[in-house]
This record gives sequence, C-alpha cells and structure tokens, in this order.
Amino acid sequence: MSNPIVPLTLEGASVLHQMFHVRWDEWRALDSHSRHAIVQEAQNWLETKEGAEGGEQTAAFALLGHKGDVMLLHYRRDFLGLLEAQQQVEQLRISEFLESTTSYLSVVELGLYESTRKIFDELDARGLQQGTDEWDKAVAEQLERQKKAMAVRLWPEIPESRYICFYPMDRRRGEDKNWYQVPFAERQRMMHEHGLIGRRYGGVVRQVISGSIGLDDWEWGVDLFAEAPESFKQLIYEMRFDEVSAVYAQFGTFYVGLRVPSEGFGHFMRGEPRSAVE
Amino acid sequence: MSNPIVPLTLEGASVLHQMFHVRWDEWRALDSHSRHAIVQEAQNWLETKEGAEGGEQTAAFALLGHKGDVMLLHYRRDFLGLLEAQQQVEQLRISEFLESTTSYLSVVELGLYESTRKIFDELDARGLQQGTDEWDKAVAEQLERQKKAMAVRLWPEIPESRYICFYPMDRRRGEDKNWYQVPFAERQRMMHEHGLIGRRYGGVVRQVISGSIGLDDWEWGVDLFAEAPESFKQLIYEMRFDEVSAVYAQFGTFYVGLRVPSEGFGHFMRGEPRSAVE
Amino acid sequence: MSNPIVPLTLEGASVLHQMFHVRWDEWRALDSHSRHAIVQEAQNWLETKEGAEGGEQTAAFALLGHKGDVMLLHYRRDFLGLLEAQQQVEQLRISEFLESTTSYLSVVELGLYESTRKIFDELDARGLQQGTDEWDKAVAEQLERQKKAMAVRLWPEIPESRYICFYPMDRRRGEDKNWYQVPFAERQRMMHEHGLIGRRYGGVVRQVISGSIGLDDWEWGVDLFAEAPESFKQLIYEMRFDEVSAVYAQFGTFYVGLRVPSEGFGHFMRGEPRSAVE
Amino acid sequence: MSNPIVPLTLEGASVLHQMFHVRWDEWRALDSHSRHAIVQEAQNWLETKEGAEGGEQTAAFALLGHKGDVMLLHYRRDFLGLLEAQQQVEQLRISEFLESTTSYLSVVELGLYESTRKIFDELDARGLQQGTDEWDKAVAEQLERQKKAMAVRLWPEIPESRYICFYPMDRRRGEDKNWYQVPFAERQRMMHEHGLIGRRYGGVVRQVISGSIGLDDWEWGVDLFAEAPESFKQLIYEMRFDEVSAVYAQFGTFYVGLRVPSEGFGHFMRGEPRSAVE
Amino acid sequence: MSNPIVPLTLEGASVLHQMFHVRWDEWRALDSHSRHAIVQEAQNWLETKEGAEGGEQTAAFALLGHKGDVMLLHYRRDFLGLLEAQQQVEQLRISEFLESTTSYLSVVELGLYESTRKIFDELDARGLQQGTDEWDKAVAEQLERQKKAMAVRLWPEIPESRYICFYPMDRRRGEDKNWYQVPFAERQRMMHEHGLIGRRYGGVVRQVISGSIGLDDWEWGVDLFAEAPESFKQLIYEMRFDEVSAVYAQFGTFYVGLRVPSEGFGHFMRGEPRSAVE
Repeated sequence: MSNPIVPLTLEGASVLHQMFHVRWDEWRALDSHSRHAIVQEAQNWLETKEGAEGGEQTAAFALLGHKGDVMLLHYRRDFLGLLEAQQQVEQLRISEFLESTTSYLSVVELGLYESTRKIFDELDARGLQQGTDEWDKAVAEQLERQKKAMAVRLWPEIPESRYICFYPMDRRRGEDKNWYQVPFAERQRMMHEHGLIGRRYGGVVRQVISGSIGLDDWEWGVDLFAEAPESFKQLIYEMRFDEVSAVYAQFGTFYVGLRVPSEGFGHFMRGEPRSAVE
Repeated sequence: MSNPIVPLTLEGASVLHQMFHVRWDEWRALDSHSRHAIVQEAQNWLETKEGAEGGEQTAAFALLGHKGDVMLLHYRRDFLGLLEAQQQVEQLRISEFLESTTSYLSVVELGLYESTRKIFDELDARGLQQGTDEWDKAVAEQLERQKKAMAVRLWPEIPESRYICFYPMDRRRGEDKNWYQVPFAERQRMMHEHGLIGRRYGGVVRQVISGSIGLDDWEWGVDLFAEAPESFKQLIYEMRFDEVSAVYAQFGTFYVGLRVPSEGFGHFMRGEPRSAVE
Repeated sequence: MSNPIVPLTLEGASVLHQMFHVRWDEWRALDSHSRHAIVQEAQNWLETKEGAEGGEQTAAFALLGHKGDVMLLHYRRDFLGLLEAQQQVEQLRISEFLESTTSYLSVVELGLYESTRKIFDELDARGLQQGTDEWDKAVAEQLERQKKAMAVRLWPEIPESRYICFYPMDRRRGEDKNWYQVPFAERQRMMHEHGLIGRRYGGVVRQVISGSIGLDDWEWGVDLFAEAPESFKQLIYEMRFDEVSAVYAQFGTFYVGLRVPSEGFGHFMRGEPRSAVE
Repeated sequence: MSNPIVPLTLEGASVLHQMFHVRWDEWRALDSHSRHAIVQEAQNWLETKEGAEGGEQTAAFALLGHKGDVMLLHYRRDFLGLLEAQQQVEQLRISEFLESTTSYLSVVELGLYESTRKIFDELDARGLQQGTDEWDKAVAEQLERQKKAMAVRLWPEIPESRYICFYPMDRRRGEDKNWYQVPFAERQRMMHEHGLIGRRYGGVVRQVISGSIGLDDWEWGVDLFAEAPESFKQLIYEMRFDEVSAVYAQFGTFYVGLRVPSEGFGHFMRGEPRSAVE
Repeated sequence: MSNPIVPLTLEGASVLHQMFHVRWDEWRALDSHSRHAIVQEAQNWLETKEGAEGGEQTAAFALLGHKGDVMLLHYRRDFLGLLEAQQQVEQLRISEFLESTTSYLSVVELGLYESTRKIFDELDARGLQQGTDEWDKAVAEQLERQKKAMAVRLWPEIPESRYICFYPMDRRRGEDKNWYQVPFAERQRMMHEHGLIGRRYGGVVRQVISGSIGLDDWEWGVDLFAEAPESFKQLIYEMRFDEVSAVYAQFGTFYVGLRVPSEGFGHFMRGEPRSAVE
C-alpha cells in the first residue's frame, strides 16, 4: 500500500492583510471639507470591494492596541489582483494619513489530510503505482473535482462577524519534536482531533486558513471571525492542550479588531467607534 | 472518573494597557496657557474614568525608564469599550504630545484549577458523562454561578497602591518541558503551590491576572500593585524557585510605574513627580 | 579511500538583492513633468541592465506586502561591479523617493556534492594522496574544467518569469542535529533526494542558488522564478517533508514579487500594476 | 534540618541607568552662548548629584560605540527618587539634545547565599520551625541587623574609576540546565567559587550588583568599575569558565564608558574627551 | 601536573568598528563648493590616520548592501584613544551626512592555547605551584616576554587588501554543547586543527582577531582581509565543517566592504566607486 507523506492541498483566493497606523495628528489638522472628501473616496472604494463576490472582497477592521489602527483584508483572484489592491489603496488620498506597519501574504488553503488517505487508497485499489504518470494524473483529477466541490470555501466571502482575530503560525521543526518527520498517519490523526475542537466551536467561530509557505515568514495564516473576542480566547486555549497544538504549534503576532463596514468608516475616522461598528 | 484537561476559566473586564512616550520638547515649547488647557482636558477625562465603577475604570501611571513615560490602564465592559477608550484618548489634545510605544490587550481571568476538579467530581457523582449535552449544560450552570459569586474579582476596581508592575508571560512549550502536556492533576498541584506564595504576600501585593491567548502575543498579563517596588522583586524572586515558575514560566517585558491620580496629572506634566503621586 | 568533508563549489556571478520602499506621498506631490523625467532616467538605466549579458543584468520586481515596494536584483562580474550598481542606483534621481529597507549579498553557487565524490574517487584511482600539492592541483584543474562547462549556470540570465520568490536559508547547527557534523555520504544522499524534487518542478520553477557564507547573515540565498506563486508554495511545502529540509533547513524572510520589465516601470510608478507587469 | 530554597537578599539604593544619544548636529548648530549656558546648567546639576552622599548620587559616562553617547547612572533612596531624577534630567535644557536610547531599572542587592545557610542553621539550633511566625520574625531580625552592618555596600558611592562596564544578566532556565531547580547547597557552592574569582580581582575591579527581577527585563544588572577596560575582559573571561557562569549565566547588552566628572562635562560636549575625563 | 582552564591571552590595540549610512539626498542637495570642502577635510583626517603607525590607524571601507555605506575601522593605543577617534569623526563636517547604524568595540587579542600548555608545563618543571604568588609572577613574566615578541601582531597595521569581511562571534554555551565546559586539552586540540585551516589560507586571507568579552555583545570580532570576497566564503565554509566551528561557533552579522583609501574618498562620495577603490 502506498503511503502519502505530503498532504494534498487545494488553493483558492489570494490573501493580503495590511496593517496601518493612522497619523491622527495630521488627519485632525486637516480642514473638515478635505477630511470629508477623503473619507468619501475611501468609503466608495471600500463599498465596491465589500460588495464584490466571494474571493474578491476587501474588508476593513479597527485594530485594538499599538500594532495598528486599521487592518485591510483583501481576497483576490490572484497575486496580480493583490498588487492592484495594494496600489489602489496607496492611491486613495487617505493613504497620506496611513502608515504601513506590517502585512501578511497567503493563499486560502484547504489541507486534505483525510482525503489524501482516501485518494491514495482508491488509487491503490485501482492498481496504480505512486510515482507514475497515471498516478499523478489521477491525483490531479481528484483535486480538480474537489476544487469544484469546495469552491465556496476556496473563494470565500469575508464573514461579517463583529470581531476578527488574525495570527500566523508554524508547525514546530525542533531537534526532537519535528512535525515534518512525523509519519503521515500520526499527523492525520492529530489533525482530525484538532478539527473536532474547531467543529465544536463551529457555530461561534468561523475560521479561514490560508497557506503561506514560500510566500511569507510563517507557514500559515489563521483568521477567526466571531461575535465576541472571548470566543477566540476559549477556542485557542482549548486547542492549546490538543496534541498537534501543544507539541507542534508555534504562534506569531496576534491582531484583534472590529469590523468597520464601509458605511461606518467615516465614523471611525471621526473617532466614533460605536457608530462605526454598529 | 472523568479527567479534565482544560481548566475552566471565568472572564471579566476587558483590559488594555497603553504605553506612551511624552514628546517633552514639543510640550515645553507650547505656551503655558495652552498647556494648562490641554492638561485640564486630560485631567477631566481621567477623573471621570477613575471614578467609574469596577470593570470600567482608567488609571494613569508614570513609568520609569525608556519604555515609556506614561501608562494608561483601561478596564472596560467589552472590547468595543476598549476601542472607545482608545479613540477617546486619541482625541484628547494631549495626544498630540504622546507617542504610542506599545500596548497589551487581555481580559481579566480567573483560572479555576481547583474548581474544575470539584465540578468534574460532582458531575461524575451525579452520573453525568463528559462530552454529553447534560454535562456541558451542568458545567455552564456552575460557571454562571461562580461568575456571579466572583463578580468583584472579575470586574475589579484598579487598586490605588503607589506602584504598579506589569508584565506578560507564557507557560513554556519546550520540546521536553511542555506545560500543555502535563497531566491536569500535576498542573493543579503546581498551581496550588504557586498560589500559596501569592497568598503569603496577599497583604502586600495585589495581583490581577488577565488572559490574552488569542488576543495578544503572550498568554497572560500580570498586574501587581504594591506600596513599594521591592515587594515586586521579592514576590517574583520567591516564585521563580517555585516549580511552575522555575520550569514553565517565560516572561516578557516588565513595566514599573507610579500611580498618578487625575489630580496629580498636571504636576506630572510640569515635571513635579513628588506632588504628582502624593 | 579518501573521504571528502567539504563539498566542492563553483562560484559565478556576484549577486545583490536590494529592497526599497517607495515614498509614494512625496512622489505624488511632485509635478508630472519631473515625475516623467525621473521615471525616464530610471527606465533607461534599467533597460540597459536588462539587456546586458548573463551574469551582468539587473531586473526590477514589484513586491507584495510591507517588506518593500520594489526589489532590484543585480548580477555582476564581481563585488566592485555590485558597488557600482549600488552607487548607480543611488545616483538615479528616483532614489530620492526610494528608502532602502534591506538587502542580500551573495555569489551564484553550484554545490558539487555528486562531483566531489566522483573527483575524489578518480584522484584516488590515479594514486594521488589528499593533502598533497598534486591532489590540490588536480582538484583545481577539475574545478576549472567544470567552471567552463557550467558557465551558463554560473553566469545566468535573470529568468523572465512573472513571479519571483527570494529567501535566505541556513543549514541547522543544533546541539543534536548539526548538518556540519553529518558524514559526507549522508549529506550527499540527502542533497540528491532533495534535488529530485527540484527536478520534478523543473518545468515550472527555475531556481538560482547563491552562497553567502562569509558575505551575509545566512548561508545561502534562494531565488525561485515561476509563472504562478502557488508553485512556490507547492514546491517548498513538498520539500519541507524532505529529510534535508525537514531536519536541517532554517529559513529567513520571504520576499514575493512580480517582474516589472523596464518598459513597465513607468506604469508601476503611476500605480498601474496590470500594465506594468504585462 | 531545614533547607533554604530562596536565598535571602538585602536591598539598598534604587538604581537607574539612562543611555542617550547626543544630537550633535543640532547641538553644534546652536550659538556658542546658548551652548555655554546649557552646559553650565547641566554641569551644575551633575555637580550637586555627584556630591550627594552614598546611595543618592548621579554620575555621567561617555559611552563608546553606537549604543549611546552618554550614560547617566542614578542611585536614589527609592523609586520616587528615580522618577524625580528622570524628570529633572528631562527638564535640563540639554535634554533637547539628548535622545533616550535605553535604560535599566534595578535595586542594589546583596545576595546572601552564605548567610542564608548560617541563619537557617542558627534558627534550627534555637529549635525554631520554618514556616512559623517565630521563624519569619527571627529571619527578619537577622536581615535588619545585616542591613545595618552592610549599609555602606547597600548605599554605595559611585566609584570614581576611569572606566565603567554595565550589563544585565539572567540565570539560565533551560529545559535541562535550570538554575532555579538546582538544590540550594549546590547553588551556594557555585556562588562561593564564583565569588573567589571576583575577590582575586578585588583590587582592580569594583563590582556593584543590582537586582531587577520584577523591575526590568533581566534578573540582575552588573556594574564594573576599573582603571583599564582590559580588566573587564580578563575578569569576565575568567568567570566564563567558572561553573555558575559557564552553565547558568546569560548575558544582555554590554555598555562600556569613561567617567566624565561634572567639571569635564563641558569638554565632553565640545568634543575634547581627553580633557573631559582627566 | 597542573591543568590550565582559562587560556592565557595577550591584548594589544583597542579597536572600534563604526558603520554609517550616508544621507545621500542631503549630500547631493549641497552646493559643489561645500561638498568639496567637506570631502577635503574628511580626506585630510583620514590621510593622517592611515599614515599612523601600527595600532593607531584608521581605515575607511565602502560597504555593500543596506547595513551601511561606510565603515571606519579604528585601531588605537587605548579606549580613550577610541573615544577621541569617535569624537573627531563626529566633529568632521561630513558627520552631518553620516548616520551611525551600528559599531563594534574590542581589543586585538592573541589567544595562547598552545603557549598556555607550554608555560604550565615549564612552571611545573620548575616546581612552582598553581595559585601561588610565584606561579602568578612567573606567568606574568612569560606574558610580558611574549607581548614584546608579538608586538607586531598586537599592534598591527591595517592590511591594504581590497576587501574586508567583519563579523562578531561567540563560542556556544548550549545546554549540552558548552565550550566553557570542555576540558582544556580538548579545546586546545580543536583550536589547533582550526588554526591549520587558517594557515592554509595564509597567503590569501589575513585575519585579525579581537576579543570583546566584557566590551561588546559578542565574545570576539573577526576581521578578514583579502583581494577577492570569494576567499572569505571559501575559508569560512571550510571552517564550518571543522569541529570547533561546526559545534561551538555562533555568528553575528557579516559586513563586507571595499577599502577606500583616503585619496579615493572624494571619488566615493561622488559615486565613482571604481576610481575610489583603485
């Protein structure tokens, strides 16, 4: 029986998180007429992007703390689309008052630990040999089929929950504990158990995983969406005791924010957060 | 008998620490009339927030060293409240002279290692099975009851001690020594012993623990309040030999400051620290 | 039989990656006539360098995310050539609007794990002794011969693929897992397996390895070129399970960008990325 | 027999190290009359503080390298005294030309490994039980007595040696090698051997240890004072082979400077270091 | 027989590396007359220092990459001499256009692993006892003698090779692999083997080791001088497989530059690197 090593993955929307500080002093020094016009332009742009279809939207968030004031989350068809988004934002007049602090580049990813096992078994049953062209072609067909079946998850709409939590993460590659040296079946089991926790929170926390190996400095980006930030804490705390996280997860910086829909953006820039997010 | 893995926790006030440098040169270049008006506005805002009820206050501290000149500690009902606090501060005219250096986002947390054990035993005794809806419902009821009983600790007033010490911390997840892989009973024992030291310092150091898993870059934030900074040193030094700290605690940056009540804020801005804090 | 320890390497073109932020606000504040002249000058310089022969070219890329807006990749005959490139860029008027963020210095390198074994065997067969002048001379001759045979790979043209991925990397020198303590034959075997994956992606991803031991802060720089960024992710994800990467690879910062040919540079500076890259 | 775990310590003067860059360009752009007046004011302040009694002094040092141009070392009665020092410096007109780079906050500390053992033995002999009020009271009395006996070391004058070396350090808390898990007797032995080296250098290097657990980001600060910087190197190199340092010491940033007495401060600001320090 | 633990060392010239960015935009904005006068002043200062005798020189280098544009390497009689050099550079008018990025402080050091063994054997043979005054006096005499014999290496002239490579390094103090716990004889053997590689490159790479324990943030600084940068790469790559480096070496940031003799400095500032270095 042929044993998989690398799990199959599906890739969907290209994703860019952009974090900005607002130069509030300069912004407030501006006359109210200019402020109004600048906000209007930004709001119009954001409105169009919010209204785009799955996999092509942009959403804005008000961040808490010093890591940034605003986060823009862009989903696009491809990286050229992200470059366009990046340059469009840069050309909005409001950009003169935004200072880029950090960003994260990734691609919506569905990791197929379970399907990988099934596909391998099925191809084995059909008498195909791993490493042959027939095998590769059969795998490609299976992936293509799944890609269609999972289009909604690969090209998602940005959930409209009040809160977002974004963080990048790695699987540990320590001298003793090394995820990339664990047999596939073990990894599959751990990912399965991990998934069960996520599923239990399914009604409360929506999760979008994006892969960034070869694209940015961590291996994955995680976006959680919920109505209350305590849900992020509870979910992640519970997961931290879970084997795959306890032993193999390493976490980057956490960003927590509140969704600012386009119609609230002017309120946000006027320092009226309650009206901005509601 | 069912064994807990994840300790139950209670969440209370939303917490934001904000650290700022004062742009002293620009501040001193201002005419005294403007300085007076700006201080008055800030002082009024602070006075209102100091006087708010438990879980809704803001307090100001003068920091020692280069990490910042001023720290604001905000307790609020929820994260939207924190966003409001953040934007209110930003809109005070004094903000033109404050430069944000760092911040910390968390939620007041009571970790219930002892109660978790008791609740599990009790539900076992009632014949409930972990993983069932009955069990979950019974746990939720217990938590709700405790939440009420512990409301004062969940929605605390900011202690009025002269000194504050704030630092974030993690539990170690090393390749060998991994807190999240230690059996619950072991963790419970270590947390109990840890608590005994804290209790011995009870009359001298007040402690507010807030959780930040999924919210900020460390797992917990710790605020200590005392009349003399040597107490911070003694408590933490003693705890460092304690098993849970010796083996499993990892510490972030330490911030030490003196409480500046609203009526002392003008003195602080005039460079009169003794009058500011007394 | 004499056993090699240090693999033989061939060195070719000197390489400098330069990353820059564009000061967009200042750029846009400039009158259109000046912008046009400045772009024209930069474009002319770039055009000449794009058109240079293998090992002497410069190419420009639009970066995604906050790590930079523009990356220049210079290949030159030697380090004095790189210093010239660096100062030529600095003297272009556009440099007033470019802020250097980071850079990477290296030399195109062909690691000869396989040939080293063969050369050692051959010299053994000729009865030469390692450590003698005859041996060293014979090795030098072999290297000289290979250097000629591999001139195209040592002095490469910059591939014209739409996407680039650049990252620096180290071989792990851990307390237990230490690449530099692994026997040569083991390293040769692992590098061979590693190479097989690269070869399977040969039609999709072009790879240029440059060495930077003694030159910059990591041991190697890796440039990947492809028509789609997903290829970077797939290749590197698959390699991560490969023994030499799983156990011994440590990665620095990843930079992903789109090639901006000289004729597209004006579009890029006007915020028209689609026209810039196509 | 009762075994100590935590060594007893005595705390003395509150300590603040402040490092500054001088904005030389702005300073030199000033007219000579203003420069003279500003230097005079700073010099007067420094002169008063130099002349204060033990535990209440400030001294200035010219730093070598990019980490800062000036270091101020403040000893004060308490942390409020340090806040005053900090604000007094900030209010000197010269502060407009000083840019704070870093700082370190601590308290002069005498670690009593040897005495702890003796005190425990003595209290045992008197039949007292650890953990009782009698025991605690007896310990407190002993500490009070020692505090008086050691007042000169707890409230030291700043040595007038030509050179200073300051660095913070930790005791290692590794997964295997963890200082805080070593039995007291072992730690006592290692500290004793460590002390012997220090004593051998006694005539050449004066040492002031300050504790910063709970106060700043490392556990201790070390100030060495000597007539020649080679002495720092020799002492610390020799200590590095000593068990407690070899295995358990972790070092932060090193700052090396030359004492600038108040009467030399004007020379320093005029770029005449030889006259400044002699 | 008495066994050494700490190797004896000889200390020579005090060393300061200073790295600077040139503020090219401001520099180019200056009128050509002022530029000429400023360059002339800098060139005159550098010329004098280049011409000083061994152990008292300064040399300038053009750096590659973003870590700096210019590196000054100062050798002086003592640290007061370095402070003078630092302030003299600061007072050159060109300093207005130089921004200090980093620096490194150290002392030329000859590590005497071999001689230490010989001296100990000889003193043993003379019947002296380690730890006695006679022993210490005899050692001091031996060191004094060697110091004279090695004066040229302790107070070196700065080699005039075209390329420099500077990096700081540590010996590893890991939990398992700890240089400072390895027996002297083992360390001596490894240093001997390490030295053999250096010697084989003797005609190609000149090496100056300086010690910085107690002076800066790494334990040693290494300066390599060669006519081609590939030599740095080859030497350091070969050494990396050598036991003492493979297991015990940890490396900081690498700086690579080209020597700019005083007569080329004007060319460098005009952006003519080829004329500057030749």
